[in-house]
Amino acid sequence: MTPTPSSPNDDSTLDLACELIRRASVTPEDAGCQALMMERLKALGFHCTPLPFGDTENFWAQWGSSGPLLAFAGHTDVVPPGPLEKWDSDPFTPSLRDGMLYGRGAADMKGSLAAMITACESFLRTCEAAGNTPRGRIGFLITSDEEGPATHGTVRVMEWLAEQKISIDYCVVGEPSSADVLGDTIKNGRRGSLNAAVKILGRQGHVAYPQHADNPLHRALPALQALATRQWDMGNEYFPATSFQITNVHSGTGVTNVIPGHADVLINFRFSTEQTAERLQEAVEQTFAEHEVHAEIQWTLSGKPFITAEGALTDACREAVKDVADLATTLSTSGGTSDGRFIAPYGAQLVELGPVNASIHRVNEHVKADDLARLSKMYEGILTRLLNAP
Amino acid sequence: MTPTPSSPNDDSTLDLACELIRRASVTPEDAGCQALMMERLKALGFHCTPLPFGDTENFWAQWGSSGPLLAFAGHTDVVPPGPLEKWDSDPFTPSLRDGMLYGRGAADMKGSLAAMITACESFLRTCEAAGNTPRGRIGFLITSDEEGPATHGTVRVMEWLAEQKISIDYCVVGEPSSADVLGDTIKNGRRGSLNAAVKILGRQGHVAYPQHADNPLHRALPALQALATRQWDMGNEYFPATSFQITNVHSGTGVTNVIPGHADVLINFRFSTEQTAERLQEAVEQTFAEHEVHAEIQWTLSGKPFITAEGALTDACREAVKDVADLATTLSTSGGTSDGRFIAPYGAQLVELGPVNASIHRVNEHVKADDLARLSKMYEGILTRLLNAP
Ligand SMILES: [Zn+2]
Ligand SMILES: [Zn+2]
Repeated sequence: MTPTPSSPNDDSTLDLACELIRRASVTPEDAGCQALMMERLKALGFHCTPLPFGDTENFWAQWGSSGPLLAFAGHTDVVPPGPLEKWDSDPFTPSLRDGMLYGRGAADMKGSLAAMITACESFLRTCEAAGNTPRGRIGFLITSDEEGPATHGTVRVMEWLAEQKISIDYCVVGEPSSADVLGDTIKNGRRGSLNAAVKILGRQGHVAYPQHADNPLHRALPALQALATRQWDMGNEYFPATSFQITNVHSGTGVTNVIPGHADVLINFRFSTEQTAERLQEAVEQTFAEHEVHAEIQWTLSGKPFITAEGALTDACREAVKDVADLATTLSTSGGTSDGRFIAPYGAQLVELGPVNASIHRVNEHVKADDLARLSKMYEGILTRLLNAP
Repeated sequence: MTPTPSSPNDDSTLDLACELIRRASVTPEDAGCQALMMERLKALGFHCTPLPFGDTENFWAQWGSSGPLLAFAGHTDVVPPGPLEKWDSDPFTPSLRDGMLYGRGAADMKGSLAAMITACESFLRTCEAAGNTPRGRIGFLITSDEEGPATHGTVRVMEWLAEQKISIDYCVVGEPSSADVLGDTIKNGRRGSLNAAVKILGRQGHVAYPQHADNPLHRALPALQALATRQWDMGNEYFPATSFQITNVHSGTGVTNVIPGHADVLINFRFSTEQTAERLQEAVEQTFAEHEVHAEIQWTLSGKPFITAEGALTDACREAVKDVADLATTLSTSGGTSDGRFIAPYGAQLVELGPVNASIHRVNEHVKADDLARLSKMYEGILTRLLNAP
């Protein structure tokens, strides 16, 4: 049997994915996943540095000492399984049915972690067999709190790398980026996300005496309306237009004859590189001021927008996907946030490439079993193009 | 000691008020108050009919069999005492301090109930002594659920009265109507109160994909803004303009990255006789429709507006107050609702006249002790003017 790129010849990626799924690493637990990964990487000559911070397990692994640094980034933690009775098989017992691998983390992102490892194994073996030395370095940046508050994970490892004067040139994050078919979509950036908790102050009173009260809801309406209908920008070639959403309003105690004293409002911006968090904050504060709304605002910047322009990394990805899957991939910046937001600001070119994301964070999470070996081949193709170019 | 209208000569009203306060009739309990009242009324020749409905004690008492019917209306139930440690004396042990009578119900409205009884006692005694027969009938409409849901109280007694073909011509409700000094304010009507529980329907989704969601808050804003800024009417000589208040908005689970699927909004109208509940409901429904808001609305009409135009009853009240307190009383329709809303629609002229309301529903509820005898004299003055005119 002759291996071809689109029909890989071994089950090593699937096997490793199963090993990882068996380790019930509900965020922020790692449950031994990272030890297993480091064991495999050490065997390849990687230098591994565990970097625990707080309740979070992280590690940095590096192969090579000079030249461009291509890092694989990802997380070993998974979201909780949810109602067990809705799963057709135990979420932490990998199960192969009809060509699908079922288990919590199969798609997000233990399948990707397994593919990263086997890609390196195959790449380095192939280099050695051919007498080639890769022209650069390979890194692994792995955390166990991506699905949690993300405070002691990638953020802290990036700080540690900066202290070590290690800077990543290319970063491939294993998040499940694909929509319908493995490789159909690569994320080459993410919008920024800015949250505000707004407390709108009024004066409580009886509905029979509105003149003695100051209804914070009535006061807030025109300001919120102005914010909700504003065209913030038109986006740009990489990003859709900035969007504003009111996600929560809570005001009143349930009593029907009392005008509430305050209103709690949560708002969220998903914003393009046409905006900055500072400009959005100013605009919101000015809008409330113009409408004479007394608002106390707590801002939380979840992530700045970042973009990797088309270039060496996106080209390598496109070609690798084309080789394995014979399809033209789409670059996209849509969707939620990922740990990429903590890595890209340091200057790395960064993409996310991983399995189909339809089932992530749900019961019966699964990935097509064949896709694991194919994803491994895609990652290997990226390594070959970026670190082994003649 | 010569009795004068402004310094009554006996403590019978105060004594009876104390007896009623000792009966801890937290709504819907009556705790024997009505039995005590009926005992006193029977001694005067009243025919008393207990009318219990559900958990509520009520009675109708009537003196006389023909001629205009003047009814006193009130409630024996009280609101709960609240935190006992904040009371300076036990709420159900009447306490006289510095000329004030303290106790739950002192002002709302056991003092008034006592004054109604002693007013009748004095009035009928005086008639008898003078050889006059009152030209009309006297009624008592007493319930124990005014402070509760008010479903098995005055509403049911009015239905019973209608079945008996008894219709009230003049009604004096003992609610504490006075603002600063006993008798300074008489309520001769109340605004209507109309509530709506509005469920605004949208489609839940992730904030990163607003195009797949339908934010019910964004949808509701322009409609709510239109309702909040609308001038519903200009009121009229008796009523201030109709007012609209949003009393509660609850939407969202607290999560910052989810567009909520629906929003729960409570609204309240206090409306003048320039409006009807039907017209307000139509206007709200039309406003939501115009703004393409999918809203499920549950309407609750708490009370229609009612007004007693100046005439025989208000004249009698004004004169009685002037005689006792030498002050010019003000007619008002402001404030909350009372059981008057259930009586007036049957066609009675209706006023509310009672003690100063500053302390009602609070800890250390109290009434000026002297005001009880003075209130009794006011009620007696009304009886004299309406039933004993030459
Ligand atoms: Zn993930
Ligand atoms: Zn009352």
